[in-house]
Amino acid sequence: MKEKMVYFFGKDMAEGKADMKNLLGGKGANLSEMALINLPVPPGFTLTTEVCLYYADNNGKYPDNFREQVNENMKKLQQLMKRDFGSNSNPLLVSVRSGAPVSMPGMMDTILNLGLNDGTVKGLASMTGNERFAYDSYRRFIQMYGSVVMKIDHDKFEEILSSIKKKNNVSIDIELNAESFKEIVKLYKELVTKETGMEFPSDVNEQLWGAMEAVFKSWNNERAIEYRRIENIPDNLGTAVNIQAMVYGNLGENSATGVAFTRNPSNGDNHFYGEYLINAQGEDVVAGIRTPQPINESSKMQDEQKTLEELMPEMYNELYSIRTKLENHYKDMQDLEFTIEKGKLWILQTRTGKRTPNAAIKIAVDFVKEKIIDKETAVLRVTPTNIDGMLHPMIDPDEKITVIAKGLPASPGAASGRIVLSAKKAVEKAKNETELILVREETSPEDIAGMNICNGILTARGGMTSHAAVVARGMGKPCVVGCNDIEIDYVKRIIKVNDIIFKDGDIITIDGTTGNVIKGDVKKIKPELKDEFGILMDWTDEFKCLEIRSNADTPVDAEISRKFGAKGIGLCRTEHMFFGDQRILAVREMILADNEKDRKKALDKILPMQKEDFKGIFKVMDGFPVVIRTLDPPLHEFLPKENEQINILAGKMGVTAAKLRSKVDELHESNPMLGNRGCRLGISFPEITAMQVRAIMEAACEISQAGIKVIPEIMIPLVGNVNELKKQKKVVIETAEKVMEEKKINIEYFIGTMIELPRAALTADDIAKEAEFFSFGTNDLTQTTFGFSRDDVGPILETYIEQDIIKKDPFASLDVDGVGKLIKIAVEKGRKSNPQLEIGICGEHGGDPDSIDFFNKNGFDYVSCSPYRIPIARLAAAQSEIMKNKK
Amino acid sequence: MKEKMVYFFGKDMAEGKADMKNLLGGKGANLSEMALINLPVPPGFTLTTEVCLYYADNNGKYPDNFREQVNENMKKLQQLMKRDFGSNSNPLLVSVRSGAPVSMPGMMDTILNLGLNDGTVKGLASMTGNERFAYDSYRRFIQMYGSVVMKIDHDKFEEILSSIKKKNNVSIDIELNAESFKEIVKLYKELVTKETGMEFPSDVNEQLWGAMEAVFKSWNNERAIEYRRIENIPDNLGTAVNIQAMVYGNLGENSATGVAFTRNPSNGDNHFYGEYLINAQGEDVVAGIRTPQPINESSKMQDEQKTLEELMPEMYNELYSIRTKLENHYKDMQDLEFTIEKGKLWILQTRTGKRTPNAAIKIAVDFVKEKIIDKETAVLRVTPTNIDGMLHPMIDPDEKITVIAKGLPASPGAASGRIVLSAKKAVEKAKNETELILVREETSPEDIAGMNICNGILTARGGMTSHAAVVARGMGKPCVVGCNDIEIDYVKRIIKVNDIIFKDGDIITIDGTTGNVIKGDVKKIKPELKDEFGILMDWTDEFKCLEIRSNADTPVDAEISRKFGAKGIGLCRTEHMFFGDQRILAVREMILADNEKDRKKALDKILPMQKEDFKGIFKVMDGFPVVIRTLDPPLHEFLPKENEQINILAGKMGVTAAKLRSKVDELHESNPMLGNRGCRLGISFPEITAMQVRAIMEAACEISQAGIKVIPEIMIPLVGNVNELKKQKKVVIETAEKVMEEKKINIEYFIGTMIELPRAALTADDIAKEAEFFSFGTNDLTQTTFGFSRDDVGPILETYIEQDIIKKDPFASLDVDGVGKLIKIAVEKGRKSNPQLEIGICGEHGGDPDSIDFFNKNGFDYVSCSPYRIPIARLAAAQSEIMKNKK
Repeated sequence: MKEKMVYFFGKDMAEGKADMKNLLGGKGANLSEMALINLPVPPGFTLTTEVCLYYADNNGKYPDNFREQVNENMKKLQQLMKRDFGSNSNPLLVSVRSGAPVSMPGMMDTILNLGLNDGTVKGLASMTGNERFAYDSYRRFIQMYGSVVMKIDHDKFEEILSSIKKKNNVSIDIELNAESFKEIVKLYKELVTKETGMEFPSDVNEQLWGAMEAVFKSWNNERAIEYRRIENIPDNLGTAVNIQAMVYGNLGENSATGVAFTRNPSNGDNHFYGEYLINAQGEDVVAGIRTPQPINESSKMQDEQKTLEELMPEMYNELYSIRTKLENHYKDMQDLEFTIEKGKLWILQTRTGKRTPNAAIKIAVDFVKEKIIDKETAVLRVTPTNIDGMLHPMIDPDEKITVIAKGLPASPGAASGRIVLSAKKAVEKAKNETELILVREETSPEDIAGMNICNGILTARGGMTSHAAVVARGMGKPCVVGCNDIEIDYVKRIIKVNDIIFKDGDIITIDGTTGNVIKGDVKKIKPELKDEFGILMDWTDEFKCLEIRSNADTPVDAEISRKFGAKGIGLCRTEHMFFGDQRILAVREMILADNEKDRKKALDKILPMQKEDFKGIFKVMDGFPVVIRTLDPPLHEFLPKENEQINILAGKMGVTAAKLRSKVDELHESNPMLGNRGCRLGISFPEITAMQVRAIMEAACEISQAGIKVIPEIMIPLVGNVNELKKQKKVVIETAEKVMEEKKINIEYFIGTMIELPRAALTADDIAKEAEFFSFGTNDLTQTTFGFSRDDVGPILETYIEQDIIKKDPFASLDVDGVGKLIKIAVEKGRKSNPQLEIGICGEHGGDPDSIDFFNKNGFDYVSCSPYRIPIARLAAAQSEIMKNKK
Repeated sequence: MKEKMVYFFGKDMAEGKADMKNLLGGKGANLSEMALINLPVPPGFTLTTEVCLYYADNNGKYPDNFREQVNENMKKLQQLMKRDFGSNSNPLLVSVRSGAPVSMPGMMDTILNLGLNDGTVKGLASMTGNERFAYDSYRRFIQMYGSVVMKIDHDKFEEILSSIKKKNNVSIDIELNAESFKEIVKLYKELVTKETGMEFPSDVNEQLWGAMEAVFKSWNNERAIEYRRIENIPDNLGTAVNIQAMVYGNLGENSATGVAFTRNPSNGDNHFYGEYLINAQGEDVVAGIRTPQPINESSKMQDEQKTLEELMPEMYNELYSIRTKLENHYKDMQDLEFTIEKGKLWILQTRTGKRTPNAAIKIAVDFVKEKIIDKETAVLRVTPTNIDGMLHPMIDPDEKITVIAKGLPASPGAASGRIVLSAKKAVEKAKNETELILVREETSPEDIAGMNICNGILTARGGMTSHAAVVARGMGKPCVVGCNDIEIDYVKRIIKVNDIIFKDGDIITIDGTTGNVIKGDVKKIKPELKDEFGILMDWTDEFKCLEIRSNADTPVDAEISRKFGAKGIGLCRTEHMFFGDQRILAVREMILADNEKDRKKALDKILPMQKEDFKGIFKVMDGFPVVIRTLDPPLHEFLPKENEQINILAGKMGVTAAKLRSKVDELHESNPMLGNRGCRLGISFPEITAMQVRAIMEAACEISQAGIKVIPEIMIPLVGNVNELKKQKKVVIETAEKVMEEKKINIEYFIGTMIELPRAALTADDIAKEAEFFSFGTNDLTQTTFGFSRDDVGPILETYIEQDIIKKDPFASLDVDGVGKLIKIAVEKGRKSNPQLEIGICGEHGGDPDSIDFFNKNGFDYVSCSPYRIPIARLAAAQSEIMKNKK
């Protein structure tokens, strides 16, 4: 270990600096850095982490020469502060704080106001002119020191405090006067003697060494060890200890305390922004007993307020110059705490300031314009959460909310409205009532119209890739799923949430960003998309390699996608087109058909409708590829299940209910996710694939003849065996060639497949010989790799995350260790046998930043995600590429 | 290519031999071989495959010198046969047959009776004294040559034949006389002229060269090319052509024809066995118009029959000496065709004789005893199908059966009985009626008692690993599943099979070896297990490395398993024990419990029952390991689904029907196979695992104290993540240690896991660190790797196999390319991180020979299969190891 064990920081000098975190801890290094750039930090010194480790390894012995170094620095501190440690008239008080190389908030110990005893407290009282404050500080110090250093049960101090409050008939601390605190001090000291058999130490040096020792020891207290285990922090880092002069903003009318941001944290405007209180301590600002004042005009909310700029112009100017210095030094917006003690400005802390999404983007862009940072840094600085916040209304953080239940945050944003318990009802109600929240056990494809009308969707079941979740994300609508606390009684038309009953029509709010379900309406904020958003997004394109496409099934979705910068459609699900009123009937006719002829007749009715959809999409995507997946879901999804509905439908279709019922029974499957769907349908009924390909190619030919560039990519789902793809490919090629001959035009089109089954990944070399592109269906792949049904997995995942069996929902963020391994195998095998293979992903993971990083690192060509995730995907793709190149 | 293009074979000499298949084709090499060992084969010669390839590559030109070689050999043939090609008095007739290196039955062309024309036909008539035969041969030759060589539509010949039959008012060929055939010959020749503008060639050499050319060309006809593509036969093999003298068994009373087996093909007895007909051709034996006679006493069925031995003792003795020669040369029982032409014996063909399972085993064992083959060869010679045939009753091959439908052959053997439509009903009916076949849509665990009572099980749904299939195999009971042609109407109590209606109580037969469903009762044969079976089985143990264990859930199963030679239990499913009348109630109480306390109370009731089961099994398996799997199926499997049953049960349990209904609803899952089952249950309710471990360990301790050696292996199902195993392992260890402390005895036990999810295989290195053994659950692994639900896969698989998308049902025989790849990854990773890891497999594939070969080659320690598959597994394991070492 180093000879030097104590590092001083103070007026315009410091022995440490920012990059000495390992030796000085995060806090210590930061204090040194602040001092180095001439910020007026209250002086002090840092004991190194090496001392902590030595102390632990040597049974509580300090290294040689350590005491001397501490004493020297303590002397220096007194000189600099012009106060004496232990003086009864002009006492120096210090804080003793832990500070490890890695932040471990609240895990280790801290002692404030150290240096108080029966003598020095009087000095503090006269210095502040506030006896009550002095004795309150004193009793707090005894309480803190008594519990932390002397290991007396904290509750016992609280009991004394309570008894005095009771005796004085008051309910909160602030109502106690100086005399009461004196009495408490006395009782506290008696408690210490009773509990430990020793007097509370009045010697300030004894106090200092006791506190230091306690902080060093706290590195190895139980909760710190457990925290390190969970967070994977090495045990051999040790903690530093910071001893720093206490300063006070409550020493008279020429003292003050405040908090400031170097720029407006709400909107990012380049204005200094902050609040302060004259003659007050930091905690007064927080406690909200006195209303803080704006530091300057631009921070003003009300006209009659007095600004710091007006009251203490000199102090304000010094603060303002520090503001500029901070931004230039830290190259980011800072949040600083300051105290003015008798006309002297102290900066207590500076750190990167929290900001709204809006502000985050504006500040990043402005900093580039002001040449403080480069574009790369700006792109790295904005978080996916920031972007999310820009795209969806959020609950006003100042709102008081009553959370009644929590589910999975399936689609971000907040929405309020009246509870409605069926999608059909929602459509009816929507005639008079516009603010609705659909609450269901789960949703199904038939519910789409109703879902579209509601402000948000809440389901009791399902996971992050359940129907409700996928559809809501596609619509950009807030959604909470898998909310197990909710019991829905469709008959009584109520929902029960942990014994509270809500009726159909009651108002609730859901927060799809957090998963919260909230009682009543709450205020929301919806950021505007300002110019800076577009600028930042353009910058992402300069860095990213991945192309971003969207999962879009309609011309409207396609339009939104282009607005958000999608460079193509990575997944167009044809089945969503089947649910229109007209269409579903034709689809059902097709399903009921007993023979190929009748089936073709029904398909002929669907053909022109599908074709129109494709034309609309192709038109919007002019010049960009459109990946269209052939029919994927099992046919029973298009039929009703309940007898009543079957009877109604049978009437409509002119068949007997028995026939319909028998078809429903025939199509019933024990595990539909593993059943007759995907290409299995197309192989049993090639005429369905043929109809869809005809619709795609007729649309492509016609739109192309209108002068628009069309790039269709036809995608076969659920392939597990190259022979499946071969069979379907034959149908695709035959149909496409025929259509192009009829239309007398040649269009370049591509044929590829989803990789969404483990077997497809494992045999990707064979499959790649027949495919021009792969698109990973990570939802299904996660499902089969884990053996988790995404419709049922909710409660299991909850248990697993709670028990720390898995870290994150694998349906939300790619399971790199399992599913990721399969993907790597597939990419490697696929590219090896077909180097031209285009590789993308169209599962829900395409919009998840961590997953995007994985796809980027593994050589994907594109990710495809729901339209409202596109900006996030663009950002994440750029960040991944920048970080990749930094390594 | 070689100079020599024609290889002669004839009296005691041949230019080729058996190992020249590539040059002479299979048939040619075999004819040479027969000649070489001095069998009296009709002489002839073989044109090499090289000529075929040259001919194809050179636009139908023959190599230089080829014609000369053919002509020379033709001359030699005439001399040897003492007949002249084209002679009107003593004509030589030949056959021209294709014969490729790899058998391609029926794909290429053959011409018989070549050498006939208007002159030679008279010679044949006088030689045979049978004008009708001569002209029938002639018209057949024209028809064959006309269609094969001259490409005249075969139907046109048939039309002429029909018209003549009509004119003569007869319905079959045999009724036509010589005059009619003469007329047909005339009409055929007219047809040839009309169709080709040419006369039918009367020049016998022109006939010969035309036929040779046609056979060479047929190598590249469409169906042969397609056949090679499907069977993966290289296109560059070419076919040989065999030209061989025709001999006739119908040239008088000193001529005969017959078929013989060197040993009895029904029971394997070491007696020469065969049939013959005097003055007849081979086809007369087959056509069944005359009844063939026994060749000797030991072939006699009726007393009054005249044997060949009696009638032609010299011929018989020659044949008998050939019998011995054949067995010594081919070292297997042979099936030979012979013809006696005017007192001269000819052997037309010899090949390995087909035999019953019984005979196969006896012959293999006898051959070893007679020192003709070694044990290794004997083990390789018996097929798994032979073994299967020994263990289950089979339909008598002589029975005429009416197959009414076909399903999947889920459990081998044939069974007949009256249809019963519910398991419960079966139990009732069984009081009076013992022969029952249970017919259901599908079965469920509640049906076990009923299944056990019936002779066989037939289901309309499900695949090779559906509940019915697995349970039936376990019981050794015939079972056909996934029989889609069956519609069951439980209300009307009928089943409809392709519009035929069967009533409850009607008799049907199912054949679980073929998947056939048969109308009425049929005669069955049930081979006895003779000594040879045991001898052969013991030999397998000398060669195999794999250990064979059984899937057994009861002491009875365990007993059967030991009888068949299992060396342990590889899978004991605890849940099957839950379905007893007493038990299921306690299980349901446990499921309905709202809290841990109530749950434990219910579990306490189950504990002693489970413990007794384990004691019984441990007792039987003395000294052998028993792998016990903790609870696996989803809890809803233990509850009824229909309202009526729910009401009854609620009454029994003293809870409201609403509460029970609500629990059923709560447990409902969209895809139960991917739902809350396996270790997921044990993690949610560790008390269930604890109860099971307690039952296992208490049983183990008590049995062990009784002096029996117990080796329990506790297996955690459905692990996908090492943390799941860690959690469950903790419960197992804690409980086991506690029990052993209570019982004051220490028992070595092992903890391992199923590998049945792709994620488990992919992260096997992590999992192996916590596991002492892996057991591959290939049923579930196949399910998730393919994304096939085994309960729903029936119709999909049917389509896929029909369309040649997959070759075999992957639930019956391991999918080596996909699932196999995962298994290889898991074995490699698992062994790498834990070299002591024991690796086994307990899926249904453990009893499939091809799969066993895969497991053996990939270093498994054991396979575990249902009790009745054990002998097959032993044989397959030995065969795999022998073949591995041969390479």
